[in-house]
Amino acid sequence: MRPLPTIEDIRGAAARLAPHAHVTPVMTSRTIDGIAGARVFFKCENLQRVGAFKFRGACNAVLSLPDEEARRGVATHSSGNHAAALALAARIRGIAAHIVMPSSAPAVKRAAVEGYGARIVTCAPTLRSREEALASVLSETGAILVHPYNDARVIAGQGTAALELASQVEDLDAVVAPVGGGGLLSGTAIAISSLPHTRTIGAEPEAADDAARSLRQGTLLPSNDPTTIADGLRTSLGELTFAVLRERGVEIVTVGEEDIVKAMRVVWERMKILIEPSSAVPVAAVLLRKVQGARIGVILSGGNVDLSRLPFI
Amino acid sequence: MRPLPTIEDIRGAAARLAPHAHVTPVMTSRTIDGIAGARVFFKCENLQRVGAFKFRGACNAVLSLPDEEARRGVATHSSGNHAAALALAARIRGIAAHIVMPSSAPAVKRAAVEGYGARIVTCAPTLRSREEALASVLSETGAILVHPYNDARVIAGQGTAALELASQVEDLDAVVAPVGGGGLLSGTAIAISSLPHTRTIGAEPEAADDAARSLRQGTLLPSNDPTTIADGLRTSLGELTFAVLRERGVEIVTVGEEDIVKAMRVVWERMKILIEPSSAVPVAAVLLRKVQGARIGVILSGGNVDLSRLPFI
Repeated sequence: MRPLPTIEDIRGAAARLAPHAHVTPVMTSRTIDGIAGARVFFKCENLQRVGAFKFRGACNAVLSLPDEEARRGVATHSSGNHAAALALAARIRGIAAHIVMPSSAPAVKRAAVEGYGARIVTCAPTLRSREEALASVLSETGAILVHPYNDARVIAGQGTAALELASQVEDLDAVVAPVGGGGLLSGTAIAISSLPHTRTIGAEPEAADDAARSLRQGTLLPSNDPTTIADGLRTSLGELTFAVLRERGVEIVTVGEEDIVKAMRVVWERMKILIEPSSAVPVAAVLLRKVQGARIGVILSGGNVDLSRLPFI
Repeated sequence: MRPLPTIEDIRGAAARLAPHAHVTPVMTSRTIDGIAGARVFFKCENLQRVGAFKFRGACNAVLSLPDEEARRGVATHSSGNHAAALALAARIRGIAAHIVMPSSAPAVKRAAVEGYGARIVTCAPTLRSREEALASVLSETGAILVHPYNDARVIAGQGTAALELASQVEDLDAVVAPVGGGGLLSGTAIAISSLPHTRTIGAEPEAADDAARSLRQGTLLPSNDPTTIADGLRTSLGELTFAVLRERGVEIVTVGEEDIVKAMRVVWERMKILIEPSSAVPVAAVLLRKVQGARIGVILSGGNVDLSRLPFI
């Protein structure tokens, strides 16, 4: 097992990101406070570059590479926010990025990645095809793999969101983040661990509750192709993120699909900001009063949605 | 003709509003700057209380009333943002509000007004029925009419948005605001007139271009029940707003319906904030490069949309 990232790694990431990432605002809503029975502070990573916290982890990973590695370029597989984040991070460093994307990826996501100057390698939309395509990209180009979450540099980068939140809002009783692969939640738990009275809570769809099950059983129990509207959270924990969450004693709460859509709608209507379904998962947990505390931080992880396919009726 | 409001009236309104209104943020977008060929500064009144600039005007009007008038309560007719704004302003002052709304008003708008404790008087969805209902409310209750735009106190309140913008961003070449009844645009023109190098531009749907026609001809030429997606801009100028816009030499640019929807989509997708179609009208003008200048302010007037009836396909 590789060494787990520490608060020092997150502080280093914050310094590395400072010239490139936005300091995202913290927003509040009286209506939501009333429903939640608490003061809720929303950390708006939907307003981060590329529209998601993923820019923090990808950028930290790319900027951490020694020159001799960086010049080989970077690669990953992703059809989502990590793809665009890695493409932008590579452009900032002036190196090549190779992104393996399934043929089923929406045109708008491909366009975003291409817009940042990355090379897209298309594969069939199966796990096996994706892994084969990535392996051949890595062997042909010598590029450095930047995994979306099972990577200490990525975890440290994601943790900078919570570190920043803690500098913007005092005396939080809890910080809630969504959990898919666990990069954001792991980084959050490490960042928050320096605050003695703040707990880190992960929020997960009931329909993709591998983190809740894995932490309860003490062993990695991946979900198998789960169905949830929170498409960013269909991924299961990796060994590194699982180890961090165990070490930090992170608690997981789960919410249902209807509650996710309702929470997304409340944020859109009341706060006038776009969040993607994955971001609505911790909001739902707070609206349902599943998180204890008088002052609660919520990380709104991203705002990339397909406006032609919204769940509101 | 009543005296036209002045910059001093707007400064007075700003002091009156300070304890109650949000200082809304100014946002920017590299993508939009690229399309517009200018640096564009968005004044986010969609993040104002009740989700629109209308709170500023209604609140200034209500707080300006002498005690002996205030205790009679206030009344208006509106199916939109002014209704909720007046209801909230009256609650803040602790007085009654009577809102005449057409039976066709969406349930969500009625619920917002009722949520602020106002009394709703329902009328048939015709101009005549609305005027009759309002007249009988005024005679029965003795309440003070707060017109949505043809009112100097309301205009002064709306002008505080541009005054605030001018304190947040320096050296603007132009400020663009949507024009329906003209309250926001009039207030903007007065607020901006103290800045020697900044022009005020009104943006209007081609399909509801009464302000453009009226100012060109030098006489009030109301639109007759125009059809535009920008539902907040279907209203025509009033005599007071027309007089202010003439006095200040305000220029109007017009945009088409498709451009309004496109501009709305660009803001949602790129800036991750909700704006209503009326707010997209000045954005469209800027994206189409119909406004000259290197640094342009745009007032995003509101963010109240029905998520079940969006124009994106």
